[in-house]
Amino acid sequence: MRVRHKPWADDFLKEHDHIVIHEPKQYKGKWRELFGNDKPLCVEIGSGKGQFITGMAAQHPEYNFIGIELAKSIIVTAVEKAADSALPNVRLLNENAADFRELFEENEVDTIYLNFSDPWPKNKHEKRRLTFSSFLEQYKAVLKEKGEVIFKTDNQKLFEYSLSSFSRFGMILQEVKLDLHAENDPLNVKTEYEEKFSSRGYRIYRSVASFQ
Amino acid sequence: MRVRHKPWADDFLKEHDHIVIHEPKQYKGKWRELFGNDKPLCVEIGSGKGQFITGMAAQHPEYNFIGIELAKSIIVTAVEKAADSALPNVRLLNENAADFRELFEENEVDTIYLNFSDPWPKNKHEKRRLTFSSFLEQYKAVLKEKGEVIFKTDNQKLFEYSLSSFSRFGMILQEVKLDLHAENDPLNVKTEYEEKFSSRGYRIYRSVASFQ
Ligand SMILES: C[S@@+](CC[C@H](N)C(=O)[O-])C[C@H]1O[C@@H](n2cnc3c(N)ncnc32)[C@H](O)[C@@H]1O
Ligand SMILES: C[S@@+](CC[C@H](N)C(=O)[O-])C[C@H]1O[C@@H](n2cnc3c(N)ncnc32)[C@H](O)[C@@H]1O
Repeated sequence: MRVRHKPWADDFLKEHDHIVIHEPKQYKGKWRELFGNDKPLCVEIGSGKGQFITGMAAQHPEYNFIGIELAKSIIVTAVEKAADSALPNVRLLNENAADFRELFEENEVDTIYLNFSDPWPKNKHEKRRLTFSSFLEQYKAVLKEKGEVIFKTDNQKLFEYSLSSFSRFGMILQEVKLDLHAENDPLNVKTEYEEKFSSRGYRIYRSVASFQ
Repeated sequence: MRVRHKPWADDFLKEHDHIVIHEPKQYKGKWRELFGNDKPLCVEIGSGKGQFITGMAAQHPEYNFIGIELAKSIIVTAVEKAADSALPNVRLLNENAADFRELFEENEVDTIYLNFSDPWPKNKHEKRRLTFSSFLEQYKAVLKEKGEVIFKTDNQKLFEYSLSSFSRFGMILQEVKLDLHAENDPLNVKTEYEEKFSSRGYRIYRSVASFQ
């Protein structure tokens, strides 16, 4: 079943409350209780249709995964994927990343994934980029020591901006890949955008950055 | 006149001692005296045949320039270029960058240029890369506050390595360009390697990094 129209979305999300967590702010600091175990927590921001987060959850049963996606009409597809695969270690939040700090407690998150984030190419929209300093501040607040922000994009300008933004914020670039698909990494889980843009011949960039 | 054979090189360099500075370590801390003015000092390491350093010196009479090149058979071509153009603000040193710290005093250098440095692709040769931490330490020692290391290369792996090396050393990436020639920058002075690799369709990368 594919849910294409918004009117379906609300009901659909309500029916799947074992996957989509409603009122997620009440779980701040308590995500391990919700998952019922002490596995490290990985969070993806802007998870779109969910191919990455469900793929990662399947590949890594030793971690818990939370995907945050703002658009209701998009997150429904991610919820379907998670429901179909019946994975116990993935949850989805229909939230705005701007409220990130209200969703997680200090030291609660092990890894943050940003995949093909909206580029907001105009300078006047810099503050909306998920790699802008105000977001980095929130990531830093919730990440464990040595926790990483792992960022993939096809957008050259956004990648240039983000490397500099990470660096100016005092983050350390542990790894930079300027053509991720040139080497065949069997552990790389592709996102929907990654498949699309890579098949059109665009390079895929990846960085791994930490606050220490 | 082109000097192609090593036997010519020694005599040629001796004859041009107004451009090639012999025993340059005696000028440590005294480069401004040698140039006879207080202009800021820019140093290129591995200047090859000198197109960049002479081009920059012509474009920027408000700066002094020193090019360091290890290979005698290569530096002669740079010396010819500098002699032909009769620029008062450029000198060349036939030295090894490993001795960098013995050539300049603390705070004596404003900008360091690394252009198409040898990539040393094998891990076991990491220490030879001009962006390895032991070199960064020397650059830091001689650069003024907010002085910059400006690095251009066509080598993707070396660029990935260097961004991470700068960052791990605590340097700040002020700017990263992943396809320098995609935008037409009329002020960009091209090196010999830059022209060659760019004309073959390789991307040119550039970063600007500072220690503060
Ligand atoms: C370009 S898409 C990429 C989707 C997916 N990550 C991929 O790589 O295929 C960006 C996604 O981020 C979501 N998004 C943008 N801003 C967001 C925010 N502030 N909070 C949560 N999600 C956001 C958008 O709704 C969209 O689904
Ligand atoms: C690949 S070439 C690039 C030349 C020039 N910068 C260009 O872009 O056309 C590298 C140059 O660096 C010089 N070089 C390598 N290691 C050096 C060192 N330790 N000190 C000084 N020069 C060095 C080499 O002799 C060679 O001329």
